[in-house]
Amino acid sequence: MEKNMRPLLLLSNDDGVNAKGINELIRTLRPMADLIVVAPDGPRSGFSGAITSEHPLRCTKVKEEEGLTVYQCNGTPVDCVKLALHTLVPRTPDLVLGGINHGDNSSVNVHYSGTMGVVIEGCLKSIPSIGFSLCNHDTDADFSPLLPYVNRIVEEVLKMGLPEGTCLNVNFPDLPQFAGVRICRQTKGVWTNEFAQATHPNGRNYYWMTGNYVNQEPESEDTDHWAMDHGYIAITPTQIDVTAYKLKKEMETWNFNL
Amino acid sequence: MEKNMRPLLLLSNDDGVNAKGINELIRTLRPMADLIVVAPDGPRSGFSGAITSEHPLRCTKVKEEEGLTVYQCNGTPVDCVKLALHTLVPRTPDLVLGGINHGDNSSVNVHYSGTMGVVIEGCLKSIPSIGFSLCNHDTDADFSPLLPYVNRIVEEVLKMGLPEGTCLNVNFPDLPQFAGVRICRQTKGVWTNEFAQATHPNGRNYYWMTGNYVNQEPESEDTDHWAMDHGYIAITPTQIDVTAYKLKKEMETWNFNL
Repeated sequence: MEKNMRPLLLLSNDDGVNAKGINELIRTLRPMADLIVVAPDGPRSGFSGAITSEHPLRCTKVKEEEGLTVYQCNGTPVDCVKLALHTLVPRTPDLVLGGINHGDNSSVNVHYSGTMGVVIEGCLKSIPSIGFSLCNHDTDADFSPLLPYVNRIVEEVLKMGLPEGTCLNVNFPDLPQFAGVRICRQTKGVWTNEFAQATHPNGRNYYWMTGNYVNQEPESEDTDHWAMDHGYIAITPTQIDVTAYKLKKEMETWNFNL
Repeated sequence: MEKNMRPLLLLSNDDGVNAKGINELIRTLRPMADLIVVAPDGPRSGFSGAITSEHPLRCTKVKEEEGLTVYQCNGTPVDCVKLALHTLVPRTPDLVLGGINHGDNSSVNVHYSGTMGVVIEGCLKSIPSIGFSLCNHDTDADFSPLLPYVNRIVEEVLKMGLPEGTCLNVNFPDLPQFAGVRICRQTKGVWTNEFAQATHPNGRNYYWMTGNYVNQEPESEDTDHWAMDHGYIAITPTQIDVTAYKLKKEMETWNFNL
């Protein structure tokens, strides 16, 4: 970043440009940085790293003020980041931020999260990237207890950087105050009972996705779920290399000859 | 698996139930296993780990023969696996298979791939899971050189199992024969020039996703791209824990106090 230049932050999310979470993120970061927001034009929760190749993408500028430009886009969260970096940003952003998500993205939820899709895309483009999520799905959730920590984490990452190929998944418990910040690993967990069945008036069955999350290691104190269950803000350092190196070594002795 | 019982394999993909790739997978595996296929009703390429929570899901049985049942579903690849395991399978499958994909899912493409979405979902449900992809996007690509290797890899994984939390991402170069099988790691690479701009008759701009893939480490002989570039089948062992453990250790000294 050039001397005397304010940081430029690219913001996106998966709840859509009008969600409270991203607007709270804008509000808290505006004093410290120039912001460009490129977010979906409606809800894209659970869109993971999805990209759109079969339909044309459109972007519309919906706000331009000193230090803040907002676009909405008809694509996925990852499309928003890609399109922003390809064509909308005035220079490479200093950070890519996802959120603040309405709902928890810890544990295995990282694999479904559109918020983390944003963050992983920023990371794939070699930009330090952070996802923020609050463990509360309400459209009018209270984000105010988080905001000082969001600013602090952004400041610290602007100062320290992040190693190539890594990003941060930050999850806040839904509390008025926090016991502190813990650096965590991804909890082992599983979703069960994932569908509710219903019957259409025409007689055909259909299904709504729902489910119960089961923490498979509730006693492990180094996990993101343990941290949140005990009142801490959970920061889970995350990487884009998903190679299973231990299995790679084991499999070198396997035989795949025909 | 019970003695004398044929293995049960759950198949899905992201190119849709009518794509040649999944039908070739069915054809080659049918002699060795009972198959249940639950696949999207049309193309879902690039859907990553996306799930559908805002719309109802529907599934229709489109084929039932001895040892083969096929459903199509209006959801994402991951929805198909979830719905199959929740409600459609007669018992827990011995393997979950994604593909055969029309197009390469090596390197960073693992993050966008609906085929690997299928595989990661199977893995999250503690079922050994394998994704198969051919580096050819043609709807009528020739899968025949791959098929003996697909069978061999499936046999071997049925015999050996896979450690909890791991799965396989198998990519085939588009060749009539192969130099052999290599166990690889995910290549570092990046997509550039990701959009082509066009103008609607009404004057507004829109964008099509496209792009050029750049291998950032073409000389690294342990990568999946190197393997394919040199005529090998690339097997990349993949894990669902995306924690960046080295960064986790480093960040324990960072200060996030307000």
